[in-house]
Amino acid sequence: MQNNAKKILVAMHLGNGYGSQPGAWRMPGVDPESFTNFDVMVKQAQAAERGKLHFLFFPDGPASERDIETQPPGPNIDVMMTMAAIARETKRIGLVATGSTTFNEPFNLARHFKALDVMSHGRAGWNAVTSSTDDTAAYYGKRIPSSEERYGRAHEMIQLMQALWGSWGKDAWVHNKENSEFTKKGAINAINLQGEYVGASGPLYVPPSAQGQPVIVHGGGSPNAHELAGRFANVVVGATFTIDDARAQRKAFRDAAKRYSRDPDEIKFFAGLMTTIAKDRRTALDRRIQLTESNFPERVAYLQRMLGIPLDINRLNEPLNQAQLTNARPSPYDPRSAHALKIAKEGWSLRDIIAHGVIDYHPVIVGPGVEAADHMQEWFEAGAVDGFWITPDVNADGIDAFVDEVVPILQQRGLFHEDYEGETFRANLGVPDQYGIDPRIMNHKNK
Amino acid sequence: MQNNAKKILVAMHLGNGYGSQPGAWRMPGVDPESFTNFDVMVKQAQAAERGKLHFLFFPDGPASERDIETQPPGPNIDVMMTMAAIARETKRIGLVATGSTTFNEPFNLARHFKALDVMSHGRAGWNAVTSSTDDTAAYYGKRIPSSEERYGRAHEMIQLMQALWGSWGKDAWVHNKENSEFTKKGAINAINLQGEYVGASGPLYVPPSAQGQPVIVHGGGSPNAHELAGRFANVVVGATFTIDDARAQRKAFRDAAKRYSRDPDEIKFFAGLMTTIAKDRRTALDRRIQLTESNFPERVAYLQRMLGIPLDINRLNEPLNQAQLTNARPSPYDPRSAHALKIAKEGWSLRDIIAHGVIDYHPVIVGPGVEAADHMQEWFEAGAVDGFWITPDVNADGIDAFVDEVVPILQQRGLFHEDYEGETFRANLGVPDQYGIDPRIMNHKNK
Repeated sequence: MQNNAKKILVAMHLGNGYGSQPGAWRMPGVDPESFTNFDVMVKQAQAAERGKLHFLFFPDGPASERDIETQPPGPNIDVMMTMAAIARETKRIGLVATGSTTFNEPFNLARHFKALDVMSHGRAGWNAVTSSTDDTAAYYGKRIPSSEERYGRAHEMIQLMQALWGSWGKDAWVHNKENSEFTKKGAINAINLQGEYVGASGPLYVPPSAQGQPVIVHGGGSPNAHELAGRFANVVVGATFTIDDARAQRKAFRDAAKRYSRDPDEIKFFAGLMTTIAKDRRTALDRRIQLTESNFPERVAYLQRMLGIPLDINRLNEPLNQAQLTNARPSPYDPRSAHALKIAKEGWSLRDIIAHGVIDYHPVIVGPGVEAADHMQEWFEAGAVDGFWITPDVNADGIDAFVDEVVPILQQRGLFHEDYEGETFRANLGVPDQYGIDPRIMNHKNK
Repeated sequence: MQNNAKKILVAMHLGNGYGSQPGAWRMPGVDPESFTNFDVMVKQAQAAERGKLHFLFFPDGPASERDIETQPPGPNIDVMMTMAAIARETKRIGLVATGSTTFNEPFNLARHFKALDVMSHGRAGWNAVTSSTDDTAAYYGKRIPSSEERYGRAHEMIQLMQALWGSWGKDAWVHNKENSEFTKKGAINAINLQGEYVGASGPLYVPPSAQGQPVIVHGGGSPNAHELAGRFANVVVGATFTIDDARAQRKAFRDAAKRYSRDPDEIKFFAGLMTTIAKDRRTALDRRIQLTESNFPERVAYLQRMLGIPLDINRLNEPLNQAQLTNARPSPYDPRSAHALKIAKEGWSLRDIIAHGVIDYHPVIVGPGVEAADHMQEWFEAGAVDGFWITPDVNADGIDAFVDEVVPILQQRGLFHEDYEGETFRANLGVPDQYGIDPRIMNHKNK
């Protein structure tokens, strides 16, 4: 590939500060207080920036899914406050935090994200999610609204927040001491938008950032997600297990962008990838066994259903026998099943099959860095993705492992940039700056 | 006074980064981009910490009060994000930010403030204010609720937020890698409080900070404010112009605390004080004239009403004449009027009378540091205050002026501490740590 050809975009998921695997917090070299230690989170962000990764990504959501007596909560302690800390101690990496469109007021969220964008000199992104679980609603003493209401409100939230972000025109902030002109006359505008769910007068008293305003990020794969992202997003973080499915998802988002008269290249589709990088497959599998052993009984039970055959928890050290392999039928209800059977047929022990991460949230690399690079290259060259969001098993050394073992291979293959292209998140993503208020927003009556 | 005697507490109001006076942003040495320059705000915070001041204080509110074409907005760009930046680059100073009880969800605000408390190692405080203007409500596309509703919601907000903050017991977070105990069994509790205005299930997934949970701060002087602060607050930021009034206000808050079975010494009353510190009165007045000249016409008009006599804007350089002084009657509707007349009788020119700050939000010192020290000593020894919140005219050099010219005099007189007493905001304020959920909150049915 030529040097100026399109390259893979890469994001790093930092989460709770420990890593994605339940045993991450107990690993040697991991500060058990990482959850509240902002030094640790800043160091991890700097490690990702050393690898020239495009952005940090903080999902958010209910913390009640895990057994808190033995495991840390999944979400970060507070995504906005963590990003504020990281913004001051990094220079180029993008900063994408999740904020609910369901349980925030547009003015409050718009102000936090625009301030983050200004303090990071144009590196902020907002992952706009609709909250969808009763657990999250209960945090607010509320019931979860219907899907129609949630997405209706989400469209209004993004419109209003973008309007607030654009309420200072590009050249509004003059701050000329000599002639006492702080802002340009007429260049700051009220919004006065009132939708069915939310409203705001504006203006928001925050000048444009170096990229104008934050990038909109969205996730999910439903028709509602296509419409929302197609209309507003520059980044989509997807969950997908096969090249064919990823290609179809990416196309759906690009098609949605076209329906909103946007250039489809302005919407970048990211697939998830979880990593356990080590010098060889065996070392990586052993590391993953150490990280996940407490979950083995439930995973064996689940693998039975994926393969449609009985499995024996007492035979973890043995490969599946010929009868099991012959009778196995990948479940049509779980897109990971075919891959699980493929691994089983390679002759790995039951323990090792599970340690390959065949029952995780995203495809998993358990092996040397070149395996991650191969996976990324294959998906990228198949037109399935614009980039990947990487979830390391253990942040403390998993980020460095990706940066040191995967990034150089991708660079050597001409698939990953040698340095940041620009100063802002939009410049590094390859999407246009955004200033002012989109006239379509002001003319569009919220439904 | 003895070394272990009670001493004056001091807070510093940083605001928009420029200072309180309209011309602050245009002064020599002031970065005209201070509003968005977090380096500047961090530097100002460090200056206040150098002076061992007890806390930084960020009010918040509608930005629409000022003429944005010639002056910066009054409020900080975003009080929480600014505090997050400052928390990482200071060590001991308290961090009090304002958050509306009217237009926030308890879970969101509780999470931000507890995260700030954790990241600052126990230095956060929440100035809980009820939003009261139509301008603020319009930011949210809403009407301002009635006073009853606003204070009803404020009581519920604080109860819920304190319950969320206390939902992890003091010893809940074990994080013992050896025995895989992340949190103590049964030490993390849901809240499940539902009031008339707000509700939350909890728990909030943030461990206790070094001081347990953030300090509650409140402002205002109404009976509603007395009840709210008496019940919950450790700090009250007041607005008052005379020793007698301040003493009465302080007593009202202390009495309210007693009604809620609290030790009145746990509620600290702070009066405002604005400062223009210079080597002598003349230099200070000239500095203030430079800072405020654009406002002179409206201030002369207002001073007429305060004194009940006609004043001539064309005679700014002349003192009031004998007839004016004889006919002047301090307005009973403005508590600053008597002081304005006193200054007028000292023979200052009309320009200088106004430059004394006789029409400002708080008492104003325009002169050498010893005048500020004298004012503070007099009020403190009269039992009118526990401390002061200082608003400098220009942050860039006004904070240093206070630290270098006022603090040493107070220290010499034994009225101000030589160093921080402890590591946390509560330790330095002299109020107890707070852990867990107050049983009175859980038993008290929200009205």
